[in-house]
Amino acid sequence: MSFPPPEDGIIRGGSGAQLSVDYVVDVGQPDGKGRALLDVRDQHTNRNGHLHGGIIAMLLDAACGFTASMRLGEGDALTPLVTVQLNISFVGEVEKGQRVIAVGHYTGGGRKIAHIHGELADGTGRVVATAMGVFRKITPRGTT
Amino acid sequence: MSFPPPEDGIIRGGSGAQLSVDYVVDVGQPDGKGRALLDVRDQHTNRNGHLHGGIIAMLLDAACGFTASMRLGEGDALTPLVTVQLNISFVGEVEKGQRVIAVGHYTGGGRKIAHIHGELADGTGRVVATAMGVFRKITPRGTT
Amino acid sequence: MSFPPPEDGIIRGGSGAQLSVDYVVDVGQPDGKGRALLDVRDQHTNRNGHLHGGIIAMLLDAACGFTASMRLGEGDALTPLVTVQLNISFVGEVEKGQRVIAVGHYTGGGRKIAHIHGELADGTGRVVATAMGVFRKITPRGTT
Amino acid sequence: MSFPPPEDGIIRGGSGAQLSVDYVVDVGQPDGKGRALLDVRDQHTNRNGHLHGGIIAMLLDAACGFTASMRLGEGDALTPLVTVQLNISFVGEVEKGQRVIAVGHYTGGGRKIAHIHGELADGTGRVVATAMGVFRKITPRGTT
Repeated sequence: MSFPPPEDGIIRGGSGAQLSVDYVVDVGQPDGKGRALLDVRDQHTNRNGHLHGGIIAMLLDAACGFTASMRLGEGDALTPLVTVQLNISFVGEVEKGQRVIAVGHYTGGGRKIAHIHGELADGTGRVVATAMGVFRKITPRGTT
Repeated sequence: MSFPPPEDGIIRGGSGAQLSVDYVVDVGQPDGKGRALLDVRDQHTNRNGHLHGGIIAMLLDAACGFTASMRLGEGDALTPLVTVQLNISFVGEVEKGQRVIAVGHYTGGGRKIAHIHGELADGTGRVVATAMGVFRKITPRGTT
Repeated sequence: MSFPPPEDGIIRGGSGAQLSVDYVVDVGQPDGKGRALLDVRDQHTNRNGHLHGGIIAMLLDAACGFTASMRLGEGDALTPLVTVQLNISFVGEVEKGQRVIAVGHYTGGGRKIAHIHGELADGTGRVVATAMGVFRKITPRGTT
Repeated sequence: MSFPPPEDGIIRGGSGAQLSVDYVVDVGQPDGKGRALLDVRDQHTNRNGHLHGGIIAMLLDAACGFTASMRLGEGDALTPLVTVQLNISFVGEVEKGQRVIAVGHYTGGGRKIAHIHGELADGTGRVVATAMGVFRKITPRGTT
């Protein structure tokens, strides 16, 4: 079920949700960190007109998940996995019109489990949210 | 900035993100708990064809946030607030075609802070994800 | 490495930390939930004279961990496991002189992973803290 | 209720729990980060003979809490505060005989709320656990 990442490392529309929310995944950087980018538009805002917490969660889940997928994958392949737990701290707010980027950072784990920290920042580098997640590799027959 | 809930307690398209993702909020139940409902379609799925973790987070944030908003509001009004921290445990998976419902439950707090637990279940009542969040009331001039 | 629980279900001094902090574990209740009890004394207080957050974490880790251990164990045995992630919401405070009790509640999982919610209350049943944890079974050779 | 830190920045026995568990707090480093140090002995171990998760939580709570206290304090004073939520990822294990150190890192917040990340490492710098916490300043009359 593993699959190689695209040559340029850019994934668009990799799932129904990604297609609908319209964020871009970048797994092509040499630092081995997954990234998710979004240009914040009306469809991403909450009642206060800021980037919605659920969209923030989605971007951090993607960035952290792809970081885990690269780390747990054999060779250069992306390994299928599930999010076990994801914790998000909402530190600041973002208005529409901004570009935000989420980055994952591997902090430890084993052969099947990866602990990942994530950070979502706006175009000026200001941190908007941080995350701490646990991801688990899925094996073909789901035996573990 | 507080506002009364709609007469039937149903909120549709209350924000750009809600309109786009197309979930329904219910703040009209007598138990004082906020709810968020979604009929899972292609636009809500992850790479494995299941309900995306980011959408799960969005529904739990909404259900828990509205629960906090009712609790922290004076009288019957919904109080504006921000999510401070939201933790999500992914317990199971949901296929498209199912209806899921997230419910918030107040566990404690004070005049400005509310601690809320959330649970998202599928149509059969099976728990798919649980959440633990902290929400903070926004005051008019943002003085606190 | 699994071991049967004691006949009366009460574990005292099961580890160096438990012996030092002096809490009691109860795995003998018919509801299958692990519990940890503590009589709050000076040695358990923080700078403000209330029960220390670290002790609260220890009690919730124990209650949730033993709940997971019973659930993941085969038959009636307690299975060795590790805490993968533990999230704690501090809802209230407790003075010394009170007895507190932490209880774990299984919310889902698989053969090796358990998701557990926990609640710590004082003698009057008032909730002081809640928790959400993930626990993983340790296999003999640590191969997974 | 604020108080100045000790001249050398070292706090021993600042609370009943600290005295009993016997860890040392360091708030005297020029980077403005709080630290908690412990020499792991029998009294700190879990059933498997490793550093107990509850003690790990206590050290991270202390390191993150003092980091928040310095940040939210006016001038050089340490401000009294409470832990609102603390999430811990258990990445590795530590045997007794080792010295561990927890460090807090401010990631954002406002006048009354601080978001802090924490990391606990062993003597070789290997990360054993990470944390993400929210802390809230206590005002004299508890009015907020």
